[in-house]
Amino acid sequence: MRIVNSSKIGREAVEKFLTKKAFDEVELSPKVRAANKKIFGEDLSAIEIVRRIVSDVRKFGDAAVIDYTKKIDGVELENFAVELGEIEIDSEIFASLKVAAENIRRFHVEQLPKSWITYRGENSLLGQAVIPLERVGVYVPGGTAAYPSSVLMNIIPAKVAGVREIIMCTPNANKTVLAAAKLAGVDKIFKIGGAQAVAAMAFGTEQIPRVNKIVGPGNIFVTLAKKEVYGHCDIDMLAGPSEILIIADDTANPVYAAADLLSQAEHDPLACSILITTSQTLAEKISAQVDAQLKNLPRREIAAAAIERNGLIVVAETLDEAIDLANFSAPEHLELLIQEPFALLPKIKNAGAIFLGAYSPEPLGDYLAGPNHVLPTGGTAKFFSVLNVETFLKRTSLISYTQKDLLGAAADIIRLAEAEGLHAHAEAIRRREEFS
Amino acid sequence: MRIVNSSKIGREAVEKFLTKKAFDEVELSPKVRAANKKIFGEDLSAIEIVRRIVSDVRKFGDAAVIDYTKKIDGVELENFAVELGEIEIDSEIFASLKVAAENIRRFHVEQLPKSWITYRGENSLLGQAVIPLERVGVYVPGGTAAYPSSVLMNIIPAKVAGVREIIMCTPNANKTVLAAAKLAGVDKIFKIGGAQAVAAMAFGTEQIPRVNKIVGPGNIFVTLAKKEVYGHCDIDMLAGPSEILIIADDTANPVYAAADLLSQAEHDPLACSILITTSQTLAEKISAQVDAQLKNLPRREIAAAAIERNGLIVVAETLDEAIDLANFSAPEHLELLIQEPFALLPKIKNAGAIFLGAYSPEPLGDYLAGPNHVLPTGGTAKFFSVLNVETFLKRTSLISYTQKDLLGAAADIIRLAEAEGLHAHAEAIRRREEFS
Repeated sequence: MRIVNSSKIGREAVEKFLTKKAFDEVELSPKVRAANKKIFGEDLSAIEIVRRIVSDVRKFGDAAVIDYTKKIDGVELENFAVELGEIEIDSEIFASLKVAAENIRRFHVEQLPKSWITYRGENSLLGQAVIPLERVGVYVPGGTAAYPSSVLMNIIPAKVAGVREIIMCTPNANKTVLAAAKLAGVDKIFKIGGAQAVAAMAFGTEQIPRVNKIVGPGNIFVTLAKKEVYGHCDIDMLAGPSEILIIADDTANPVYAAADLLSQAEHDPLACSILITTSQTLAEKISAQVDAQLKNLPRREIAAAAIERNGLIVVAETLDEAIDLANFSAPEHLELLIQEPFALLPKIKNAGAIFLGAYSPEPLGDYLAGPNHVLPTGGTAKFFSVLNVETFLKRTSLISYTQKDLLGAAADIIRLAEAEGLHAHAEAIRRREEFS
Repeated sequence: MRIVNSSKIGREAVEKFLTKKAFDEVELSPKVRAANKKIFGEDLSAIEIVRRIVSDVRKFGDAAVIDYTKKIDGVELENFAVELGEIEIDSEIFASLKVAAENIRRFHVEQLPKSWITYRGENSLLGQAVIPLERVGVYVPGGTAAYPSSVLMNIIPAKVAGVREIIMCTPNANKTVLAAAKLAGVDKIFKIGGAQAVAAMAFGTEQIPRVNKIVGPGNIFVTLAKKEVYGHCDIDMLAGPSEILIIADDTANPVYAAADLLSQAEHDPLACSILITTSQTLAEKISAQVDAQLKNLPRREIAAAAIERNGLIVVAETLDEAIDLANFSAPEHLELLIQEPFALLPKIKNAGAIFLGAYSPEPLGDYLAGPNHVLPTGGTAKFFSVLNVETFLKRTSLISYTQKDLLGAAADIIRLAEAEGLHAHAEAIRRREEFS
């Protein structure tokens, strides 16, 4: 695994390495482009394809969903719904899914905010109501990325928030995914995928109910479709390939560090595994460990491609520089394999989730600890949050004034309204003065 | 003002009246289209214009900002910055702005969530860190919509949240707007506007620093630009014309109700003023009051156009039907002019802000009470929140396990990882077993 030295190549060069492509700069492979050219009759970009699909589903509903599902997925569908009653439960994995579900539920219950009120003036009151969304849609991707753990991570927080109806769309309705959805409390499942599924949930069709928010990861077409429908409903975030960044000092165990870098790399050839350390010796040991451990992995081709493409060990001059670089990178997963991780915590400004110490490896968070594993990627941890119960709640202000308190505020309101030229605003206050 | 009767025209017909156009269905006026045709050389839709501007600013930075500012706003600019030191303060309005600012600050401080930790297993810990965004951009529109009160409402919550740098862009750097920004604690002001200002903040240019989130209302071009840059940074919401919906029973004062409907109508010919009541008599009185009060308003042309276009009094059969219709409409502002407003509160699911009782008219919330007046419009209160301190914060998970607790969880993690085919994930756990 490649090692670069910040003092040699300079901070700017390191930052360049850590700069990720934006979600809309990802290029389609020649194979995908050729397949799409066959379907659409011309060589369209991903966003052009998505705009066409979303617009057609918005206009033509199920007819467009059926048409694109046939053309793109090669599947002939009439009825999208999966019968929940028929879903069977695989007992062995199910026991572990239940442990995970319980931990996820417990953590997200602790996250629940409360509606509150606060008093003003003599007998007036302000407040903030926290109200669950009525209906949300969970997208679960097909292919190798169809993870039952993600199903739990998306549905359980919505359930905890009090969402009345949770629907799920997936092109890959495999047994474990369906069992996880049932366990988590899904209300309806539809076996459709891609941009057409996203559009169907955003606008509603004959078979698919319209939702208030769409959550869950997907490929580039799903991601671009989520952006396209944003505003017609809300979405959780725009997510891309997975990432880990590890900060390690010379107390770190190179075997653990290498294993954690690889656990991320096996996700996707585009996954990103970065380690920043102050120790050149450790850097070399970890690099060797990555090469050694890689050999025995079943998914070594994917992991090797990711390490080759986006893997990097940075030797920083100080721990503070390492933290600065981590904040610059804003990784999805940040592991602190250092002697006193909590001492550094207040300095961490940008990360999706922070794993503190040698015994908090990322897979603990992926599967079992309880906090969500749906996390901002591609540097968006600078502004997006981990999926949480807030994702499924909205806030409404409450204002209740007494006549006396309103009259006390009247002069200021009238002055401000008139300064803005909004005389009817001032008038609505004056009318309350006259009639009092 | 027009009255419709739910029992006569039927619930569906009423719902159709209450259904708003989506933000991307708004059509440009012939005048605006002609002006844009001159600038762009062809008859482009609003979204095509915005995509072109955003793409140019992303590629060419300040050169594109300067070029579009000249072409669209007719202003030749080299230096965008406003000198904060030179901003003077208008003493009379300023006193009222200060009262407003203090109330806004106080309410938003009460909103502040805390980072927290929770214990697990023997000596393990999970948590949620709440971290302010580093830099945000506030957009303040020009024209008649340049409101100092909006400047306070956007900047103060960011300041309370702990945002390190707050920049503001406005094409209309008038004295009161600048004074309000200074009072609220803005760090930098730039006198640019439109889609080019939004793009400049999202991608950064030579003069404009790149921000993590853009907040604040604007015209259709600004709104579409916010959607276009979403994902490169976060945005607050996609906002359209302002709205009020009043639920009134026969205890309501028709003079107050009419004044409140008009205070919304004076904003914009596209503003929406709806009243739902169970009393036919009240409906008629309010309708007459609206016509009477309208005559004396300085902005009567705008208000009359809005009432004509989007004004409606609905006579519902029951208070429950009135509430159902309000939830269907999901208004920006909801006034409850009824005898026991708090008795209905739990039934309200969708509204930006709720004003309870006769002495809580909307302008109280617009200017002075303290809760934010930046609210979701166009039915998006079904999924978007009022602007609040959370708008400027993000959530990061914390995971810290001890060796013993990790080993206790190991079997479940390994089973789930292997069921998903992610053996390197399982391996990262196993390595901790071996070395322990």
